[in-house]
Amino acid sequence: MKLLNESLCFGGKVGFYSHSSSVCNTQMKFAVYQPPKAILQPVPVLYFLSGLTCTEENFMVKAGAQQFAAKHGLMLVSPDTSPRSTGTSDEDKDWDLGTGAGFYVDAIAQPWRNHYQMYSYVVDELPALIHKNFPVNPNKQGIFGHSMGGHGALVCALRNPDRYQSVSAFAPIVAPMQCAWGQKAFSNYLGSDQTLWRDYDATELIRKVRFQRSILIDQGMSDQFLTTQLFPETFEKACAEVGQALTLRMQPGYDHSYYFIATFIEDHIRYHASILCD
Amino acid sequence: MKLLNESLCFGGKVGFYSHSSSVCNTQMKFAVYQPPKAILQPVPVLYFLSGLTCTEENFMVKAGAQQFAAKHGLMLVSPDTSPRSTGTSDEDKDWDLGTGAGFYVDAIAQPWRNHYQMYSYVVDELPALIHKNFPVNPNKQGIFGHSMGGHGALVCALRNPDRYQSVSAFAPIVAPMQCAWGQKAFSNYLGSDQTLWRDYDATELIRKVRFQRSILIDQGMSDQFLTTQLFPETFEKACAEVGQALTLRMQPGYDHSYYFIATFIEDHIRYHASILCD
Repeated sequence: MKLLNESLCFGGKVGFYSHSSSVCNTQMKFAVYQPPKAILQPVPVLYFLSGLTCTEENFMVKAGAQQFAAKHGLMLVSPDTSPRSTGTSDEDKDWDLGTGAGFYVDAIAQPWRNHYQMYSYVVDELPALIHKNFPVNPNKQGIFGHSMGGHGALVCALRNPDRYQSVSAFAPIVAPMQCAWGQKAFSNYLGSDQTLWRDYDATELIRKVRFQRSILIDQGMSDQFLTTQLFPETFEKACAEVGQALTLRMQPGYDHSYYFIATFIEDHIRYHASILCD
Repeated sequence: MKLLNESLCFGGKVGFYSHSSSVCNTQMKFAVYQPPKAILQPVPVLYFLSGLTCTEENFMVKAGAQQFAAKHGLMLVSPDTSPRSTGTSDEDKDWDLGTGAGFYVDAIAQPWRNHYQMYSYVVDELPALIHKNFPVNPNKQGIFGHSMGGHGALVCALRNPDRYQSVSAFAPIVAPMQCAWGQKAFSNYLGSDQTLWRDYDATELIRKVRFQRSILIDQGMSDQFLTTQLFPETFEKACAEVGQALTLRMQPGYDHSYYFIATFIEDHIRYHASILCD
């Protein structure tokens, strides 16, 4: 693990790192915010998964999360959204597939399967690396994300409720099997057998598994992708049918940008802290 | 004036605009954050001047200022740091001269004088445009900035204490005549007669004029430019000699980045609000 850059921020440290990922079979980057409290004792850790086209940097630069992570004593970790420069054919061709668009799945189809293993990377390899190198309590983990990353956070949490105690999302892709972004990603990464897609679709997963806490979702009502890619009411309906607790907040006037995330980041960190912090 | 993009943020609006500047003789861009209170009544306005290489966007995206501007009811305005694509020879050659490096002076030397008039743009033209198009109280103006923009804020305020009631800075270039960045900018924009440079040097200006309020400056002690370009103690000494009230806070461990700005933005907005807001 190599430290690329580090800055003091709200009394804690924002650091950018690279490491050799065995799961993705290439160099990967991620960012960590260590709150001041982490100098004294291990702290809970909260993973943020970013959306299409993002890197490990966007969340740390734009969300304004450090202020509240410092206050509550939470470590923040934001991975990149895909492997990069792997030599996979067409990886840089489309903005919504390949580079910057790993979709938090383990690819099984060619040419993606050799590197695009973002699900295992986020759920297994990265947490192990974090536990080894940073003062975190591995039994206190939360996860959240935005758009494609909101989808990723929901899938990781629903499939591993023993590893994540809290989950929330901003404008998540809650039903990727039903939208163009998800269909494109899944057909390329997973192939044409749609039964294999269900393990990466929050609305499908919620029919089979329960999350032990209420899930928090914020959705801007002026989001340009609301009715074409996101439709949170699909997930809300599925949760209601199976008795999954969900707080879905439709926010009038807000769009899909980080200005929306920044506005509600305090609420999300407070939600996670209420579960993860003593 | 043309609206390019607008997002809701903390109940207010972040907007990006372009307009035809008569002072700079080209299209210029700027960003405005309108707090929720501006829907009800005219509010005070606080200008932020950015540093080298920045655009009108950096401050709005990275500083986390909207949260506190919303709370106090302050409008925020961040102009671009120079004219762009003017056809001026060599304007894109160096990162610290020309594009992204207007240095908030009115150029008198060729080839810059036809477009590089950032001092008059910030002090005269932009405020007039803001007053005409947004619900602001023109008698309540503050100004702050970062690095080159900290220099700009100090110069604008010291030369126009009747127009600005409050001024603060993050890691400002307080003595541009004594550092390489300032010498390069001034010799190119203003020519070789150094007596003309003094009007754009805060440490020179403070020997002649007083600002009616205490000036607030934050400076990171791990700033990579501290001892080569910034040396705030030079300004501190000059202020002490003439009896100018100054709060200079040396912040251990902080660097020159927006992570430093974000950490202390609340204090700066509180300082301006305490003077500008009723």
